[in-house]
Amino acid sequence: MGEQKTEVIAVGTELLLGQIANTNAQWLSEQLAELGLNVYHHTVVGDNLSRVQDVFAMAQKRSDLVFVTGGLGPTDDDMTREAFSAMSGLQLKEDEQTAQKLASFFSLQNKDMPVSNMKMALVFEGAAVLPNAAGMAPGIMVEHAGTTWVFLPGVPREMKSLATNEVFPRLDHAAGSHAVIRSLVLRFTGIGESKLEEELKDLIDSQTNPTIAPLVADDGVLIRLTGKAASAQEADLLIEKTRQEIVSRCGAFLYGTGNDTLASAVLRLLKERGCTVAAAESLTGGMFTEELISVPGASAVCYGGIVSYDKSVKQDVLGVRASTIATYGTVSRECASEMAERVRVLLKTNIGLSFTGVAGPSDTEGKPAGTVFIGISHAEDTEIHECHFHGDRQAVRRQSVLKGFELLLRRLK
Amino acid sequence: MGEQKTEVIAVGTELLLGQIANTNAQWLSEQLAELGLNVYHHTVVGDNLSRVQDVFAMAQKRSDLVFVTGGLGPTDDDMTREAFSAMSGLQLKEDEQTAQKLASFFSLQNKDMPVSNMKMALVFEGAAVLPNAAGMAPGIMVEHAGTTWVFLPGVPREMKSLATNEVFPRLDHAAGSHAVIRSLVLRFTGIGESKLEEELKDLIDSQTNPTIAPLVADDGVLIRLTGKAASAQEADLLIEKTRQEIVSRCGAFLYGTGNDTLASAVLRLLKERGCTVAAAESLTGGMFTEELISVPGASAVCYGGIVSYDKSVKQDVLGVRASTIATYGTVSRECASEMAERVRVLLKTNIGLSFTGVAGPSDTEGKPAGTVFIGISHAEDTEIHECHFHGDRQAVRRQSVLKGFELLLRRLK
Repeated sequence: MGEQKTEVIAVGTELLLGQIANTNAQWLSEQLAELGLNVYHHTVVGDNLSRVQDVFAMAQKRSDLVFVTGGLGPTDDDMTREAFSAMSGLQLKEDEQTAQKLASFFSLQNKDMPVSNMKMALVFEGAAVLPNAAGMAPGIMVEHAGTTWVFLPGVPREMKSLATNEVFPRLDHAAGSHAVIRSLVLRFTGIGESKLEEELKDLIDSQTNPTIAPLVADDGVLIRLTGKAASAQEADLLIEKTRQEIVSRCGAFLYGTGNDTLASAVLRLLKERGCTVAAAESLTGGMFTEELISVPGASAVCYGGIVSYDKSVKQDVLGVRASTIATYGTVSRECASEMAERVRVLLKTNIGLSFTGVAGPSDTEGKPAGTVFIGISHAEDTEIHECHFHGDRQAVRRQSVLKGFELLLRRLK
Repeated sequence: MGEQKTEVIAVGTELLLGQIANTNAQWLSEQLAELGLNVYHHTVVGDNLSRVQDVFAMAQKRSDLVFVTGGLGPTDDDMTREAFSAMSGLQLKEDEQTAQKLASFFSLQNKDMPVSNMKMALVFEGAAVLPNAAGMAPGIMVEHAGTTWVFLPGVPREMKSLATNEVFPRLDHAAGSHAVIRSLVLRFTGIGESKLEEELKDLIDSQTNPTIAPLVADDGVLIRLTGKAASAQEADLLIEKTRQEIVSRCGAFLYGTGNDTLASAVLRLLKERGCTVAAAESLTGGMFTEELISVPGASAVCYGGIVSYDKSVKQDVLGVRASTIATYGTVSRECASEMAERVRVLLKTNIGLSFTGVAGPSDTEGKPAGTVFIGISHAEDTEIHECHFHGDRQAVRRQSVLKGFELLLRRLK
């Protein structure tokens, strides 16, 4: 499997104009490396039939597995299908299921389908059609003269969902190799990357199977363990030993594994404890509630929330006392405390959370940008955390939400 | 100059492992487009002599100008020089100035220079040596068999400084061109990419200056106009003419230009009209309010919102009548209507929005996943829109929010 030559081709003039970076190739390469596949080339080519065809012909010659992203849409600029058909000689035919999906999409919206749209239903003869849960154009997987070709849409969300759910499982199966690569991601919060690395330095330096790679993630720090063995069980055993050692040192900061997010970890704990939660959000504007509700199954623990951005909503809807705001301001321990209590009472939940602070760029009520108060209210008590975050408006709001999840997690544990 | 075929090659295994994205190629492409140069390919190849050599040989055949980033450092992994020398037959010789710079760098630090470091002083015979103000390895520019080759370090800071200060001025000079490139992005909503292309097909097909390129964006469809002329004013004039023609055909769907988003366009219109807005969100869980509040200046038009995910919040906090829910269910015109009215009254705004529907994956209240009702309430009336979206849970929620912005925009216009 390690000997299989893989390459990634992106089709799209916008990449050649520098309007976007080729993050699709990066993401795919990261994933393929984990599967033990060697990527030898990335190529970007524009929306030009003969150039795309040339790039495909070269890939056919030098690679065993080729990923192509982009050029599967409905417009004249989308010519991945035509180019591959011309290069390979494989005919295009209409996939019935996709055609039906397209037709019903437009009829449900009472819109006429532009004729060109039916192009998205065309697939190569003999190909596997990979259903696209996130969009219209399906993925396509086909063998040609000893090379496996995988065609995916260029929209990153659709590409990732198709690759993860439809393509990678099939590759695993097809590879038939004897060295099995397994990996496990451990997710941490409340500890920095360098501190985590310091705690594990001797392991990271000395150990090669599994390898231990710390990485900064969007919502904390993660460690990726990658083990190689003759069987999956053996590889998992190696990984498990190292996992235990890491947990014994840094378990206090571990919140999940794999694709867990802070929100999904909090949701799981809330369910286990039979707890419900609601938030009163000022500077975060609904971001906390939105993230929690985006996790499937959220309805069991979160009934809703109040976005009390303006003072009037804090007073009139939430019921924070006017005197509290007059005396201490809205960016204060006192206001955070009442917000958390009030939302808990109003929405009849076990826990009430509150976020109030200065997102910036300018200071407010004499408080510097980045000052944020987070409240957690239970029937017995209300705790308030004062935070000072750095970065722009969006960074301060994002850090506030992550801190809220982290505090909630610690409290629930 | 526009006819000069240009390509960008990055050398480095870290790119093929997905550890970083090829942002060097993106940045160079952006700059080269502005200089009026057409980039036709990006390639990434790992630190492997024969593969780098092959990629160079192909570029020599198909391009007039080749940028190579990376592989100029002192380690064994750095093999750009060797590969190009082998491909072109151009000999490597030591550049005296660079050798002196290296020697004095180490002597100033009282360190012995590792022998391998002197590799960085090697350049091709007949090449221009471009002094690197930000690092050790110089850039190299050389002609070979009709193709201009530019070699730059892979460290983005060094690459950008060398390209800007040493390379681009020479290209401008060499090309003897005075062409200026300008571009304008027009953003649309409520119309699909294929429909938009259909409306403008004659223009897109016949017109080359400015070019007209439709693209799918995260929150709609955009068209990029790129014009080329002797001066910026002339290029802008060409673009303006085309813009007017496009607006005369599809102006009803145009919501902004450049970096506008649907949320920022809505915010601007609300401000112009002196209107305030609040949303009662069920399946969207706060996403609409969050996006609006993430735009700087949102506090003037949005005071907050209610996330009424559960029935209890719809009734007890918002004040939707129990009989409405009992009779019609929460996913209904009637519930959407009361939600929009109630949030408008409760938060004392001019406009109330509501989102209620089935995000999926399973059906709810006998309604299929993807069914969403969006309400817009004013003092005079409340309009309800029934939508049927496709895709997974997150896609349905996201489309609901975008539709809400679109409806609001249309109403405000």
